Amino acid sequence: GITVSHLRFGKTPIQSEYLIDAADFIACHNPSYIIRYDMVSDLKDGGSFLLNAPWTSIEELEVNLPAKVKNTLAKKHAKLYVIDAISIAAKLGLRGRTNTILQSAFFLINEQIMPYTEAVDLMKKMAYKSFARKGDAVVQMNYNAIDSAKEHLVQIDIPESWATTTEGAEMIKLADNDYFKNVIAPILALEGDKLPSSAFNADGSVPTGTTKFEKRGVAVMVPKWVKENCVQCNQCSFVCPHACIRPALVAEGAAKPADFDTKPATGIKGYEFRMQVSPLDCMGCGVCAEVCPGMKGNKALVMTPFAELEVKEAANWEYAVDLPEVDLSEVKMADVKKSQFTPSLFEFSGACAGCGETPYVKVVTQLFGDRMIIANATGCSSIYGGSSPTCPYTVNKQGHGPAWANSLFEDNAEFGYGMNLAYKARRETLKEKVAKLAEAWAGYEEGKAACEAWIGNMNDAEGSKKAAAALIKACEGCKDCGCEADALVKEVLADKDCLVKKSFWIIGGDGWAYDIGYGGLDHVLASGEDVNVLVLDTEVYSNTGGQASKSTPIGAVAKFASSGKRVKKKDLGMIAATYGYVYVAQCAMGSDKAQLVKALKEAEAYHGPSLIICYAPCINHGINMTKSQAEEKAAVDCGYWQLFRYNPELAKEGKNPFVLDSKDPTGDYQAFILGETRYASLKKTQPAVAEELFKETEEASKERLAGYKHLAARE
Amino acid sequence: GITVSHLRFGKTPIQSEYLIDAADFIACHNPSYIIRYDMVSDLKDGGSFLLNAPWTSIEELEVNLPAKVKNTLAKKHAKLYVIDAISIAAKLGLRGRTNTILQSAFFLINEQIMPYTEAVDLMKKMAYKSFARKGDAVVQMNYNAIDSAKEHLVQIDIPESWATTTEGAEMIKLADNDYFKNVIAPILALEGDKLPSSAFNADGSVPTGTTKFEKRGVAVMVPKWVKENCVQCNQCSFVCPHACIRPALVAEGAAKPADFDTKPATGIKGYEFRMQVSPLDCMGCGVCAEVCPGMKGNKALVMTPFAELEVKEAANWEYAVDLPEVDLSEVKMADVKKSQFTPSLFEFSGACAGCGETPYVKVVTQLFGDRMIIANATGCSSIYGGSSPTCPYTVNKQGHGPAWANSLFEDNAEFGYGMNLAYKARRETLKEKVAKLAEAWAGYEEGKAACEAWIGNMNDAEGSKKAAAALIKACEGCKDCGCEADALVKEVLADKDCLVKKSFWIIGGDGWAYDIGYGGLDHVLASGEDVNVLVLDTEVYSNTGGQASKSTPIGAVAKFASSGKRVKKKDLGMIAATYGYVYVAQCAMGSDKAQLVKALKEAEAYHGPSLIICYAPCINHGINMTKSQAEEKAAVDCGYWQLFRYNPELAKEGKNPFVLDSKDPTGDYQAFILGETRYASLKKTQPAVAEELFKETEEASKERLAGYKHLAARE
Ligand SMILES: Cc1ncc(C[n+]2csc(CCOP(=O)(O)OP(=O)(O)O)c2C)c(N)n1
Ligand SMILES: Cc1ncc(C[n+]2csc(CCOP(=O)(O)OP(=O)(O)O)c2C)c(N)n1
Ligand code: SF4
Ligand code: SF4
Ligand code: SF4
Ligand code: SF4
Ligand code: SF4
Ligand code: SF4
Repeated sequence: GITVSHLRFGKTPIQSEYLIDAADFIACHNPSYIIRYDMVSDLKDGGSFLLNAPWTSIEELEVNLPAKVKNTLAKKHAKLYVIDAISIAAKLGLRGRTNTILQSAFFLINEQIMPYTEAVDLMKKMAYKSFARKGDAVVQMNYNAIDSAKEHLVQIDIPESWATTTEGAEMIKLADNDYFKNVIAPILALEGDKLPSSAFNADGSVPTGTTKFEKRGVAVMVPKWVKENCVQCNQCSFVCPHACIRPALVAEGAAKPADFDTKPATGIKGYEFRMQVSPLDCMGCGVCAEVCPGMKGNKALVMTPFAELEVKEAANWEYAVDLPEVDLSEVKMADVKKSQFTPSLFEFSGACAGCGETPYVKVVTQLFGDRMIIANATGCSSIYGGSSPTCPYTVNKQGHGPAWANSLFEDNAEFGYGMNLAYKARRETLKEKVAKLAEAWAGYEEGKAACEAWIGNMNDAEGSKKAAAALIKACEGCKDCGCEADALVKEVLADKDCLVKKSFWIIGGDGWAYDIGYGGLDHVLASGEDVNVLVLDTEVYSNTGGQASKSTPIGAVAKFASSGKRVKKKDLGMIAATYGYVYVAQCAMGSDKAQLVKALKEAEAYHGPSLIICYAPCINHGINMTKSQAEEKAAVDCGYWQLFRYNPELAKEGKNPFVLDSKDPTGDYQAFILGETRYASLKKTQPAVAEELFKETEEASKERLAGYKHLAARE
Repeated sequence: GITVSHLRFGKTPIQSEYLIDAADFIACHNPSYIIRYDMVSDLKDGGSFLLNAPWTSIEELEVNLPAKVKNTLAKKHAKLYVIDAISIAAKLGLRGRTNTILQSAFFLINEQIMPYTEAVDLMKKMAYKSFARKGDAVVQMNYNAIDSAKEHLVQIDIPESWATTTEGAEMIKLADNDYFKNVIAPILALEGDKLPSSAFNADGSVPTGTTKFEKRGVAVMVPKWVKENCVQCNQCSFVCPHACIRPALVAEGAAKPADFDTKPATGIKGYEFRMQVSPLDCMGCGVCAEVCPGMKGNKALVMTPFAELEVKEAANWEYAVDLPEVDLSEVKMADVKKSQFTPSLFEFSGACAGCGETPYVKVVTQLFGDRMIIANATGCSSIYGGSSPTCPYTVNKQGHGPAWANSLFEDNAEFGYGMNLAYKARRETLKEKVAKLAEAWAGYEEGKAACEAWIGNMNDAEGSKKAAAALIKACEGCKDCGCEADALVKEVLADKDCLVKKSFWIIGGDGWAYDIGYGGLDHVLASGEDVNVLVLDTEVYSNTGGQASKSTPIGAVAKFASSGKRVKKKDLGMIAATYGYVYVAQCAMGSDKAQLVKALKEAEAYHGPSLIICYAPCINHGINMTKSQAEEKAAVDCGYWQLFRYNPELAKEGKNPFVLDSKDPTGDYQAFILGETRYASLKKTQPAVAEELFKETEEASKERLAGYKHLAARE
């Protein structure tokens, strides 16, 4: 959530290591922090405090600063500065990027470090160096940002009343949850080392669904829903990397907050529709607004300063998530749209804003989350998936959600395989017990039928859900009458977590799947067991800063491949397909969401191993992450990435199991790769090498496609 | 080489652990051991000694027993028994199998254990149990063997003269080699624990070429060359798993032993040809005689009792291996035949008699052994390749031969890859030095030319050999005159082992390549480096007793797959071919030796990674190992195994890189698998399962072939 930097300046280098607790200067770069964290108690007497906020008048500050902040500032005889860097940045065309403005303000306030004019000079030189390549306009924009500080910085005279006032904004309330208060909050406050070990579960497990308590409020801009332009496609919800924009369905005429504006739900009779954002969970990546088709060229989502929506939409969100679930099983609707009416059981992860990986994980939980068991490889997905002290995996209204664990980077496939084997063994034993119970219940028609129905449906996802419910009911209805069924009933109930067919997911990045975990992955796929593997393919080891993997294509610059990768991207999908009994798909949601959903459903339904490789843009690619979905589409359109499904079930029907889902490329391949810094930078540093490698990498993609076509054409 | 069993009998179980040194009874089952090992000194006074030998008269024994054996037997008042079990077995149709006869003789001599009639009864019951499935004739044959002991066992009265005689057969001479005498011989005599650590090299390296000192003489029957029937095809030499039958070329008119019979060498003017066996190194597997085409239905190799050939042919062998090498570079001759005129640099390994793996290793050393560096995975190939105290890898007349090492089962590909990188780095440095030397030698025309020639040819196998020789000569011719070249010359000579291009071989079994070492193998193949991988595919983990690997086909019985493997054999070759820049071949020498040699040469010449997968019958398959070559042919003929080559060089020329070398199958697939116990046993234990799985496995082979054909047909 929050990053704190401690800077120290001296005439000679400062060697000793300590954190600062009597600072000359403190800056708060995000207005939302002021009601979240204690920002000022480490300020020294007479020190300066800089606040980036839209509240530049004393009147606004009276309302928006909490009493405790006012008290401390007044008692410490602090100098208070305010600047509305967000608005300035927006005006200058810098969108959310406020750092240059705030850096200039820093030097303006702290002339003891160096004269401000000298600082401005140095900052401009640096800006030139960094942005000259991007053209004069960008350089000028940064010069303007530097200059803007002097014009817009406001010093506020602190009224005497602040020393004792009890008025002001309320600090954000801690969630009313014991685990949050007793464990998470202390850790977030960097006081985790004071917790006794008894605060934790002895087996190392932690409660799920705890990210929702954080209410980080880190976004500078959040999407505002413009009802009139919304076509109710749910695409924004589908792509949101942080699961914080969701469609809400309210029964017509139901009581709702005044601000909870809705429109009649298309295709769902008796319901009103609204697209609801959670401003406090939103990362402000803008991906939702970017994909929003809107109406007649007008977007239904518009990025808007956080402060404007915070209070109102936070309340709406709380109302929306408490709405009863609507049964849409009988409603005819495209899968992509429908999937979004099911709550995401993966929410508010701390992935980078706009991350290309997380939307895939989210969708999988929407489809299968209530019976999902996940083995997660080390990598970004284990970090955003399990970053202590909170857990982004959560449960639905029935209390069902994914169980998740991470073992090692290298053994993840085996880890998930073992989970699957363990359940399989437990369920086989349970099956024997249920069969015995059916016999014991010879005289209890309904019970016997429930047993038999479960045995008949135990390996079918939906079937087992229904049958499990009936069997549990039958068992629970059974009185401890002393008959021979009693003991069996108890044993069956003791293992009732096994009744519903589980959905095993083995998740990891390309570093795991193509390289370090590949030996195990291959072995597990070859085993023929019913597990599903989701590869989040960023084409580099993302979490450790972008090392090349066997997924990295020729010409891409990565760590260990600083002058461009020299050998072809490995074709993991085709390798897995050589087995013939492994379901394989390659997807890119930004290009074809329906193909993704189809592949996920086919894979999960297939009673054997499945491998789904998903293209995931990443900050390591050097692209504007707001457009990560468009980047996926462009990758497919130009032939950089292909969509396909290899379904062994088709072979059983005598059909060609391989289906190439993407169309013949039409886009400009070279333009596509040059739009990403990982490629473009090679052209700058080694143009001749780049030309050579870029030709080769395009050639390699073409060859790959030709191979797919040859496969697809097989009788 | 030798197996010693210590048996103890008592009325109550004997728990204490010790070896016997005062035996009531000792048997020597192999006549050749009598001049090799001290067979009788552990006999107690008055004990019985049974010798299996063709010498059943006192006259023959006088000649064939060493004096020391006679002395000991006489002094110990031993009872001496002789039986010619080899001849009896041959007459009864049991070929080399003498164990039943000798077991019966054992009970006949040792009636203190149980009455002989009772023993005969029990042995017959056991024979019935073991062989009833194979039919009445086999049972009867074994009954006859049991009964034969009584008729043929001869007791010899030991003459008094033996107590003091100094006459008799000479004990085999220890090789005149210090390492053998000081290290190998004590270890073979089970006295290795008495050696000081100073007897070994500090770096753990051991001398190569030491198996030839062992002269094990373990074969019961060895091949006798019948000159008239020999067509000089060299196939016997090609397939010999132990490298102990080789063609010899003698210049016409050269002096040679009287017994060294020859015939004019076909296609090589001025030379005489002879196929020479080494009886003391031969394992008696009979593979050579089995593959020998002979002439007009008459074999040119006939399996003959060891004793008949031992002395004569051992002498001939010593003469043959000392013959000068004949330069055949200008002679036009099929590669398969020609390869056998180059000495095998892998010889007399202790692999099982008839092993399907070793002939592949042998041929590779004949093609590239003089510049080979081998990384060997753990498995049979690391055991027969490096079983202390001797080493089967050896050197040619120029002193060049493979360097060999084994690291771990799982890291072998990386191990070989690292060797390659190390050499590459050293050679790059050397190249810079040679370039500088060329400059320093500006005035020394010949020297400068040698430098330049080497730089131009350093990555070409034959070119670098020639250029290296010239450069070394130039360097060695250089006087330490004090000019600036002096230091460079010394540095170049110090690294002269790098001058010839090395041939890197990464060798292992299918357990390594398909399973445990696969993650690393994939990574190394993907690296694009110039290494060659040889997979000896026995379709099980052979060395540890036959566990199933991902190479094991559906339906085969193996450990961990005791009711038949359920999932398909992994297609390792096709997986590697997905890279496009890996040379891949699948071979079976028994089916097509020329294809094997072609693949090996193409793979080695390819400046990138190569993978050659070779089908290798193994004792774990439950076949008659004498026919292991025929089994390979049958496997290809019936479509069980395919031969192909995938050569990336062809793609560069715009051709289809994939060539299917094997023809459409014509053989009977089911008959083929039923000929191997690993399949046949399933049919016995679970006929219904077998039927199902055998259908599936045939289907899987057909699908595989169909896929290959689709690939081969690509434009
Ligand atoms: C055996 C091992 N090697 C290295 C690491 C360090 N490590 C942790 S995450 C990671 C990168 C993961 O990359 P990838 O699998 O591509 O997932 P991504 O982060 O891209 O989602 C690495 C190298 C480790 N944990 N274990
Ligand atoms: C990591 C590891 N696991 C297991 C072993 C034990 N082991 C040694 S050799 C071997 C079998 C080798 O089988 P394969 O690779 O097929 O070679 P083959 O013996 O058939 O030639 C095994 C399991 C080991 N040495 N290391
Ligand atoms: S801005 Fe990003 S995080 Fe916020 S709702 Fe939109 S997609 Fe989700
Ligand atoms: S993407 Fe835009 S149009 Fe579609 S549901 Fe979301 S807000 Fe509405
Ligand atoms: S580094 Fe890349 S993959 Fe990892 S969280 Fe950030 S954007 Fe996502
Ligand atoms: S093939 Fe077998 S029998 Fe023939 S020489 Fe070699 S080891 Fe001896
Ligand atoms: S296989 Fe037979 S015919 Fe051929 S060289 Fe050997 S002995 Fe002669
Ligand atoms: S077990 Fe098989 S592979 Fe190993 S040496 Fe024996 S025959 Fe050869």
